[in-house]
Amino acid sequence: MIPLILYDFPSKLEGNHWFALGYKNLPFRVEWVEYPDLAPRMKEIGAKPSKRLDGTEKYTLPVLSDPNTGALVTDSLEIAEYLEKTYLDKPIFSNKSKGLIRAFDSVVINLLRAAFKFPIVRTSEILNARSAEYYIATREIMFEEKFTELSAEGLKREEHWTNLERMFNTSQEWYDKEEGKWLMGDVFSYADIIVAAILFWLKRVLHDNEWEKIASWHDGKWAKLLVDVEKECNGV
Amino acid sequence: MIPLILYDFPSKLEGNHWFALGYKNLPFRVEWVEYPDLAPRMKEIGAKPSKRLDGTEKYTLPVLSDPNTGALVTDSLEIAEYLEKTYLDKPIFSNKSKGLIRAFDSVVINLLRAAFKFPIVRTSEILNARSAEYYIATREIMFEEKFTELSAEGLKREEHWTNLERMFNTSQEWYDKEEGKWLMGDVFSYADIIVAAILFWLKRVLHDNEWEKIASWHDGKWAKLLVDVEKECNGV
Repeated sequence: MIPLILYDFPSKLEGNHWFALGYKNLPFRVEWVEYPDLAPRMKEIGAKPSKRLDGTEKYTLPVLSDPNTGALVTDSLEIAEYLEKTYLDKPIFSNKSKGLIRAFDSVVINLLRAAFKFPIVRTSEILNARSAEYYIATREIMFEEKFTELSAEGLKREEHWTNLERMFNTSQEWYDKEEGKWLMGDVFSYADIIVAAILFWLKRVLHDNEWEKIASWHDGKWAKLLVDVEKECNGV
Repeated sequence: MIPLILYDFPSKLEGNHWFALGYKNLPFRVEWVEYPDLAPRMKEIGAKPSKRLDGTEKYTLPVLSDPNTGALVTDSLEIAEYLEKTYLDKPIFSNKSKGLIRAFDSVVINLLRAAFKFPIVRTSEILNARSAEYYIATREIMFEEKFTELSAEGLKREEHWTNLERMFNTSQEWYDKEEGKWLMGDVFSYADIIVAAILFWLKRVLHDNEWEKIASWHDGKWAKLLVDVEKECNGV
């Protein structure tokens, strides 16, 4: 049976296992969910909410529903680890790297967080009207800031660009440490998927000239990494 | 010839390669340097300063001077990587982990930073008078805060404890991901040295009852990890 995966359209910020499923040659079906439909749809299939720091519940994507095992898994890293232990072929956590890649995920998200209000603003621009309204309202609560102020052109936007560039400069230093195109040199892993998923999101939501700027950094390394990961993941 | 390593006494926050040298069975000589003597001593042996964000120079420990190659290396990660590429036996960056362990170092330091004013205060208490005066004055500039306020008992100190505990809770999640006592399961690495060096520092500078508290977390996992790393590094 074919696993089902629920996604918000079109952001794949949390869409890492899209690549993971492709890499492992697992057929899957995607159901795109508009933001306001997320909670009712997740309840319908029996997926559990996660908890905010204040204890209230939130329903987040992606969700993996695997009819082969009956598993319902939320949270990107949990899904990746679920896939790894359930489908052994073509590991994405080779070299005893599970702990290290968890830490890597955490540090990359931290770096992204210093810049991500900018792509979040761009994301809102390509959503359908219903989702956009929901997305904007929930982000205003999340960031306690008016959405139009989130990454206002001028100093704020420049700071987000600076932080975005810093994220990739730092990532470059890490990638340079081993010989080969992946973070673990010649060993492809979920760490590369984490970076590629961010690139995928940026490419998808940013304006062309904005993506081109990122694509020009480090002699085109990041555009190339995204292509390489997509290829490695069977053209997903 | 025997490599020389310059250290501040008694903080080993940056003393990771103390373990690394031990692990690789490399004999070495330690020269303990009082803080005010650091810059002149480093100039004397020809060690270069590093740069602050504002471009001014600072002299930081540790420094490795290796008479076998003539190398003078500062910065813990640089020293570790220097040792790895110069002395091939008993690798500390196995499994193509150089990039991942750099990222790990960064995320651990970030977590520590949210708590480290507390052990910094305790460090000042065991320094010799000359070093203590220097240490306190430079930290007041660094943190733009009176030293007595840095981790004042009450809310601030509690916050530091909370953050310290969070650092170890998070580390525990990473360690749990692979089978075995090391972060990469049964593969010892510089990642374990990073954690052990923090533990060593905490054990050395905190009051007994404070260290006992940390040693009690996660069924004694952290006290045991420190012992395990010390053993693995040949009793250094």
